[in-house]
Formats: sequence, C-alpha cells, structure tokens
Amino acid sequence: MKARAFAPGHVTGFFVAREHEDPLKTGSCGAGLSLDDGVYTEVTLLPDGETRVLLNGVESEATTTRTLIDLLTDQPVLVNSRLSVPIGGGLGASAAGAMSTALALNQLLGLERTFNELCYAAHLAEVASGTGLGDVSGMSNGGVEIRLQPGTPFALDRIPTAPDYIYYVHFGPISTKGVLSDEQEKKLISLAGERCLKALLKKPTFEEFMRLSRKFAVDTGLISRRALDAVETAEAAGGLASMAMLGDTVFSTTADGLSEFGAVRRSRINLTGPVLVGDACQRDFFNMS
Amino acid sequence: MKARAFAPGHVTGFFVAREHEDPLKTGSCGAGLSLDDGVYTEVTLLPDGETRVLLNGVESEATTTRTLIDLLTDQPVLVNSRLSVPIGGGLGASAAGAMSTALALNQLLGLERTFNELCYAAHLAEVASGTGLGDVSGMSNGGVEIRLQPGTPFALDRIPTAPDYIYYVHFGPISTKGVLSDEQEKKLISLAGERCLKALLKKPTFEEFMRLSRKFAVDTGLISRRALDAVETAEAAGGLASMAMLGDTVFSTTADGLSEFGAVRRSRINLTGPVLVGDACQRDFFNMS
Repeated sequence: MKARAFAPGHVTGFFVAREHEDPLKTGSCGAGLSLDDGVYTEVTLLPDGETRVLLNGVESEATTTRTLIDLLTDQPVLVNSRLSVPIGGGLGASAAGAMSTALALNQLLGLERTFNELCYAAHLAEVASGTGLGDVSGMSNGGVEIRLQPGTPFALDRIPTAPDYIYYVHFGPISTKGVLSDEQEKKLISLAGERCLKALLKKPTFEEFMRLSRKFAVDTGLISRRALDAVETAEAAGGLASMAMLGDTVFSTTADGLSEFGAVRRSRINLTGPVLVGDACQRDFFNMS
Repeated sequence: MKARAFAPGHVTGFFVAREHEDPLKTGSCGAGLSLDDGVYTEVTLLPDGETRVLLNGVESEATTTRTLIDLLTDQPVLVNSRLSVPIGGGLGASAAGAMSTALALNQLLGLERTFNELCYAAHLAEVASGTGLGDVSGMSNGGVEIRLQPGTPFALDRIPTAPDYIYYVHFGPISTKGVLSDEQEKKLISLAGERCLKALLKKPTFEEFMRLSRKFAVDTGLISRRALDAVETAEAAGGLASMAMLGDTVFSTTADGLSEFGAVRRSRINLTGPVLVGDACQRDFFNMS
C-alpha cells in the first residue's frame, strides 16, 4: 500500500504579502514560475508508531509536511520525499514537499478530497509553519503564473509565452521565516510588489516578468551582492535573470557565465502542476542514487 | 514569421448550461477531462488578402476559429490546424482549434494578452458560434476538471486521481448547435447536471465522475442506442464508460470489446492545458502525414 506524487519547484519573481487573521486568507499575490525540478514523494502506511518524514533518505523535521499530514489524517505514515531542488533556496521545496504529500495521502487513504482542497491544506501548512505564502498557489497550475489574489480561493492567470528551460544557481540557504518577520521591510516589499504586478498585467510577457523581478529584487534591497553579480553576468551574456524570492538563488534564461558562481542547474518550466505519479510512469524516482 | 500552439481535446461527462445576455457569463458548469489528442495550430502572417483556415490541410469554414481571430486582430493570417480529434465528435475540436489559434496569434502578433484573456476570447467565440459552452474552461488547466461556475471568470477544481489513458470510439457527428437549441430538453439536462455536480463534489473520485457521467447520459436521454451498447460492452469487460457530451463518441477506461463499434483511439489524459509549441519541441506535427 503506497502512493506517489510529484509537485513542481516554484520560483517567485516578486510578491505582495498579506497577513490575515484567517490563515486561508493569508498569502501573497505576485508572479513566478514552476519547475520540473521539484519533489517526488512516496507515502506508505505505517501499522503503528509515529509518522516519519525522509528528505532525500534522511529523517527530517519537515515542519510543513508534518503540519499538512496532521491536517489530513491521524494515521501514522512514512513519507519518503526525493528533492531535486535545494531546501531553503527559495525554490518552493517546502510547498512542493507538502503538496506532493497531500496528493499521495489522498490517494493512499481514499480521502476523497478535491485538488483545490488538497492545495488549500498545503497552503495552510505553509502559512502555519511560516515557510511560504504563495508557492502552493503559484505551482498549482504550472507555467509562469500571475497570482491575482493572496490566499484562497486561488485566483490565477498565466503568461502564455515562456522559454522551455530556466537555469538556476543556488548559493546557500536564507531563512524565509527570518526575512518575512520584519514588519517595515514587508511594507516596502508590498509597495514594490504592487507596482510590479500592475506593470506585468499591462504587459504580460515573459521578458517583462524577468525585468520586473529583477527590478523588485533590487528596489527592495532583497538581492544579495553575490546574486546581483550573477544577475549582471547573465545579462552581460544576453540573458535575463533575477534572484528567487526568498532564497539565495539566481534564476536566468541563460547558463552563460553562471558556472563561476556555483553549480548551474537546468530545469524545464513545469506545465502540469502537482500530479499523482502512476504505475505507468517510466522513471523510478525512488530508486535513483 | 509563424507561431505554433497546442490545445487539448476535451470530453464533457455532464453539464449544466447557462445562457445570459452577457456572452461572457454564458457557459456551463459540470465535469470533464482533457486529452493529449487535440489540435496543433500554426499561424502565419499573410501580407494581404483574406484570412484562411485549413483543417487537416483542407480549407474550411471553421466558424469558431474565424470568430476568435476577428476578436483578436484585423490582420489576415493563415491558420493551419492539425486535428487528432474528430470534428463534431463532442471532443472539443472547435474549442481546441480556437484556443490553439489564440495562443499562436498572441505570440505571432505580440498581442500581449494574458492566458485568461486568450481563454475568454476563445470562450466568447464558442458562445457566439454556438459550438460549445464549457470546453475552453474545461481544457484550460488540463486533467479531470470540475467546472464550478458557468462562463467567466473560470472557476475550476480538479479530481486528483485519474488513469493515465482514456479510450474512445467515435461513431459520427452530432450537431452541438442542434441539441442545445431545444429549451425544454435543456432544462431537464440542467436539473440532471446539477444533481451530478453536487454528487461529484461530495465524492470527487475518477470512478464517481465516470459513474455520474453515465447516469447523466442515460437520465437525460442524450445517449444513443449505439453508444449505450458500447458503454455496456465496456462495462461487461470491467471498464467504466459513458458518452461524450455532446457527440456520438464513447469514452472508456478500457478498450476491451470496443473495436466492434469502430476504430478505438487511446489518448493520455492531458495535464498541461493549452500551450505554445516551442522550437525545442521534438515532434513536427505539421509535417506529419
């Protein structure tokens, strides 16, 4: 008895955060993109004992995923997640971990929830754990999304043109929790985010999304010195780049010049959103080395 | 100068139609699924003259696609659509033709519309042409969708569990326009559709979707004798099946026994919704024989 699901990684380019006494109304609007790099999760029933969560084979706290499980079931389960995005890199790892777990749990335990109900549970788990505000909404349909409203119900639009691939370099973790806890900074970020959202809706192209993301990262002061160096290097090579919000990761339309900053990964832009992984799936992600 | 896009075919299992003086509020709720069988469209600029639409290489009226083009541009274009779903088979061919054209036109002419704006234009074209009410909404995110509201803005949920493949047999065309023009029949259909929608939201599983679709097709009397024969044959083989609304096509979880009713096609359930086809796409759909 097991079930498997995938959820895409997610890069936020810019955002407007909203806190609300109702955690379902808490969230962010803004824009971002989903990645085929993400999280594959296999969930197995445990006959008894405590729920266990393995991230890349290592027993982990995984607060967001544990919160999600508590929202859906009392049954002890073994969650085995394989991540192809770094943890704490601003690539939506916690959201993808929770969302893939939600889909797999729904299948395994016959919970009979709709897709949106599972998304909202994963979103609640993110909000409760302080690990993110817009990643679940942003990844839920894949593509390059525009998040029109914070929180639930998700209100999404999409940029219909995008390259097939995105390159990214991760320098090291930033605590999302830390950055989001400064009130004054949040207000400045929101104002910058609102300007970007308005501008993107006027000109909803991929180039404009990249340009506005870079402007947001610089205007808010959220970009690190090293990330700005990498962004400028990509731009000198003719690319468009910015920093993933919120993580010390640069995403770019080109790999040129980026290898001096670290290991460059290439990912397809994900077009499916979170999905169950059927037995027909050719690749066995859980036996990968 | 050309651009290419794909839009999935779409099967409606059951529906509730709503007409409204505002065509954007006209549409249907209900449930259905998207298919990797669909329409690939290439749009090319014409220097002058009249817009031309080719369906599988044959110059065609293609009312819905022409209406869509008129909504987006005055520029004469050549639209070359390759369909892997039958026309008039209740498989959303007109919606997929219009939606793939909308995405390609947006790219080719730099129209700078969002994905939703392009969907709404294709939906308007469907409503104005009388060729469909829910196919554009239904296919817009792929998967097995629940359409919660008729018309725009689209309000979608999804069934998170589904098989990878669906089989279908097409017997012959039904005019969607004809069936939808009888007022009394529409009222009975709506009542049956509302019951199905309520039941599906209580138990949002793929099996329940198939079961309710079959019940809807029978209760409304929309199912043809031949289609019911095929449905019962699939069921005798252990499958779940119903008739695509509105077309003389049976869709099924099994191919067993269906070949006596005609050519059985197998399609993956589409998970992407409508997408641009980049240069990186390996398959050249427009040179296919």
